[in-house]
Amino acid sequence: MSRNAIGRDIPDMAPGFGTLRGYGGAFGTADSRLAATSRRPGAKVLASLDAALDAVGVRSGMTISFHHHFREGDLVVNMVVEALARRGVRDLVLAPSSLTYVHEKLIDRVKDGTIRRIRTSGLRGKLADAISAGLMDEPVLIHSHGGRARAMDGGELVVDVAFIGVPICDPMGNATGSLGASACGSLGYAMVDARVAAKVVMLTEEIAPYPLMPASIRQDYVDVIVKVDSVGDPAGIGKGATRMTRDPRELLIARTAAQAIAAAGIIREGFSLQTGSGGASLAAVRFIRELMLERGVKASFALGGITSQLVQLLEEGLVGTLLDVQSFDADAARSMAVNANHREVDASYYANPGLAGCAVDALDVVVLSAMEIDLELNVNVITGSDGVIRGASGGHCDTASGAALTVVVTPLLRGRLPSVMDSVTNVITPGGSVDLLVTDRGIAVNPARGDLLDALVAARLPVRDIAWLKRLAESYTGAPRPVEFDDRIVGLVEYRDGTIIDTIRRPKGLRA
Amino acid sequence: MSRNAIGRDIPDMAPGFGTLRGYGGAFGTADSRLAATSRRPGAKVLASLDAALDAVGVRSGMTISFHHHFREGDLVVNMVVEALARRGVRDLVLAPSSLTYVHEKLIDRVKDGTIRRIRTSGLRGKLADAISAGLMDEPVLIHSHGGRARAMDGGELVVDVAFIGVPICDPMGNATGSLGASACGSLGYAMVDARVAAKVVMLTEEIAPYPLMPASIRQDYVDVIVKVDSVGDPAGIGKGATRMTRDPRELLIARTAAQAIAAAGIIREGFSLQTGSGGASLAAVRFIRELMLERGVKASFALGGITSQLVQLLEEGLVGTLLDVQSFDADAARSMAVNANHREVDASYYANPGLAGCAVDALDVVVLSAMEIDLELNVNVITGSDGVIRGASGGHCDTASGAALTVVVTPLLRGRLPSVMDSVTNVITPGGSVDLLVTDRGIAVNPARGDLLDALVAARLPVRDIAWLKRLAESYTGAPRPVEFDDRIVGLVEYRDGTIIDTIRRPKGLRA
Repeated sequence: MSRNAIGRDIPDMAPGFGTLRGYGGAFGTADSRLAATSRRPGAKVLASLDAALDAVGVRSGMTISFHHHFREGDLVVNMVVEALARRGVRDLVLAPSSLTYVHEKLIDRVKDGTIRRIRTSGLRGKLADAISAGLMDEPVLIHSHGGRARAMDGGELVVDVAFIGVPICDPMGNATGSLGASACGSLGYAMVDARVAAKVVMLTEEIAPYPLMPASIRQDYVDVIVKVDSVGDPAGIGKGATRMTRDPRELLIARTAAQAIAAAGIIREGFSLQTGSGGASLAAVRFIRELMLERGVKASFALGGITSQLVQLLEEGLVGTLLDVQSFDADAARSMAVNANHREVDASYYANPGLAGCAVDALDVVVLSAMEIDLELNVNVITGSDGVIRGASGGHCDTASGAALTVVVTPLLRGRLPSVMDSVTNVITPGGSVDLLVTDRGIAVNPARGDLLDALVAARLPVRDIAWLKRLAESYTGAPRPVEFDDRIVGLVEYRDGTIIDTIRRPKGLRA
Repeated sequence: MSRNAIGRDIPDMAPGFGTLRGYGGAFGTADSRLAATSRRPGAKVLASLDAALDAVGVRSGMTISFHHHFREGDLVVNMVVEALARRGVRDLVLAPSSLTYVHEKLIDRVKDGTIRRIRTSGLRGKLADAISAGLMDEPVLIHSHGGRARAMDGGELVVDVAFIGVPICDPMGNATGSLGASACGSLGYAMVDARVAAKVVMLTEEIAPYPLMPASIRQDYVDVIVKVDSVGDPAGIGKGATRMTRDPRELLIARTAAQAIAAAGIIREGFSLQTGSGGASLAAVRFIRELMLERGVKASFALGGITSQLVQLLEEGLVGTLLDVQSFDADAARSMAVNANHREVDASYYANPGLAGCAVDALDVVVLSAMEIDLELNVNVITGSDGVIRGASGGHCDTASGAALTVVVTPLLRGRLPSVMDSVTNVITPGGSVDLLVTDRGIAVNPARGDLLDALVAARLPVRDIAWLKRLAESYTGAPRPVEFDDRIVGLVEYRDGTIIDTIRRPKGLRA
């Protein structure tokens, strides 16, 4: 028996409960209500990023995470990594949901030892070039969005500090991406970071009255808050991979893809869809919409990266719900704030294969881009034909695996190079999860899907053997000369379940 | 190097990543898309509770959890425990958010060894009587709502299977308490169970089209779904501790409490409030409302168990947001479905002291009931004056600790017994976190809050020394005879931080 702080006798042990601790005070470490001010709203709002870094105890060797909802407009990764470098922090593991062209400054931070390892969905620009050329001692890990959520929720990727840039939050840390001057829409990737990270530092442009609801990021996950001038430029969201195409060849592919999806019997009342980034893929929505109007059917939901075209479908009543893990343009960000059925979902809900069933498993069809596709229908969206990293895994393999019908779209030629080849440079999505390849010169069907072949032929769509498409491409370009690589592994490509589906090697002759 | 399933050579190790596993297939354990049907919507909907128990592998010794959102109308605890008993499962640890009068059948399940241990916020009726009399070999643990969330989120309380009864969900497990024939409103307690439990079995009355949004319980946390005739009777929600009083003495106390809160300077633009269950506490809202109208001020939010009176404030524009962890009546359940600013929050967000700051920490005032209160302002809401368990900890100590002003309301006498005494039978909330005691015969102020004393005296409120209130009570009743206990510890009272604030002993002469 021991007497506790209010004079009650407490046994030292109890059957079923082991050792007991006696009550010591009502306010945690504070000795009175008037001293317990560190829990009140505003107490976690610190004056500077440096104060925040002190508060969460950032140390060398830690794993730090970021989101990429601002895409090319992101300011937070550079801001935080520079601050850490100035403090002499070293050997960091950088675990953002993705990296883009704006992160080339990280090259110097790898060189000076601030960053030791990188895990990311994507890499582009000079940073990608440098890593391809052997900048880093440890390979970069390329993960899918669902694979990252799996690793985080499953405890394989332990984040010490998550840095989360938001346009607006309240003094307790409730935050949304839908409001504020720099509204970016969904914070779907960051929501997982907030849930699992040991510490969360929120960088915000504006502090709203408590409680800010609905909260994408919950206050109880946020340790400290810092107000900064800018966390990101929303104009950078719609740049690059998420812009709308006007290219007639891409529009032709998109229309053919929509016809193939219709022929497969997917465009029926209550079906569901997702379109990945890239011109023809995003453009497929407009042709699917036309077929829906013709047939008088509505979709139950659209998933994933949400665009203005999907918002149009929602506002026209052609789709019941948008499940938004990432808003791909300003229209989508605006919509989430005003349309009740435009719902934010996090990356785990979206695509995590490690829990009890994610949203991609309910997809009827996904349309995905490819940089390269091979005779086995394996898809490359991470390295160029020169072997250099210039893409992102994203939700590609997650949705390909989950959807009932996976359609890959690509022009047969990109410039002077075939998209269809014997063996892709690197595999992000295995051919087993690809059902159809739609090009501007014909459609190839996965041999395991004889049911689809019959349906497409019956609909008089231009079905071709994939080897025929490859030969057609080569008839214009000649057989492409395969890239030669040396033995240096600069990247590992992780499949969504945590296995390694491919390695990225250094092209011969490249040197950091 | 090993060759993976798509023929790529993968190193066995990589610097920074340790041992690597090679990719083995696109669809998890299924070998093709057409075989991967166990991931599609509906696949987790099983035909019977027994099939669900098989699927999640319920075994003897496991910890199982439940929510009490249907309060006296709950049907799920009995249904599941009976099914487990029939299967011969033994030694279960029962970890519901609370238990009520309707759970007396559990007595037999303790007696036959189905249940070995119970953790709960509350116990009432014959089950409580039996436990007080020594029914169980191991003491029952009484926790607060915030303390339970802390234990679950912090890994101290590991739930093997959570059984979650809902009025409606979709075929993937997205569920809400706001819709359906038996709508119960917020599922705030169950949301934590779903997040942390190793397995989740959802019992539902109705299956809606996918995706059911907004989802209180997320599909990725739900392993199996069973459709049953009824999970609960919503008419049981408003019974007992959450009904509205017409007792003139309770109304007098409620009005005095509101005046004291006003005198303390709390009723100003943007303040926040919570009222606990119990007559005078719930009734305080109507008098606070009158003072708000008089002064022309609005509250920013009301928190906790939400009643029709708080919904009225929301709909009148007198409060900006309701943060609802538990809907206390049918009106509150209805409101959550229609009022955008009536927000569902989970028990962790509400009151978990183990994370980075919960909503109770933002409260300006909470009004709480007491069964007994002593000269140190320690409050008992768990045992009667006979020492027998007949109450619930709930959010009592959580809100008392978090709010800037904690007001306890109680009539000076309950029947022929004083409420104010030298030392309460059991302590749920320590006196250090109580600022004011409001009775029908005067107000006592915590000596540590000289600031409040001055304000109340200046407002000519009937401030009395608490010892004076005690003597006044005893002048009517005589000094109460203290209950005598034997050495048998039948319950442990956990403070929200996991320490033990009190033990509940067996009253002398009681035998199970």
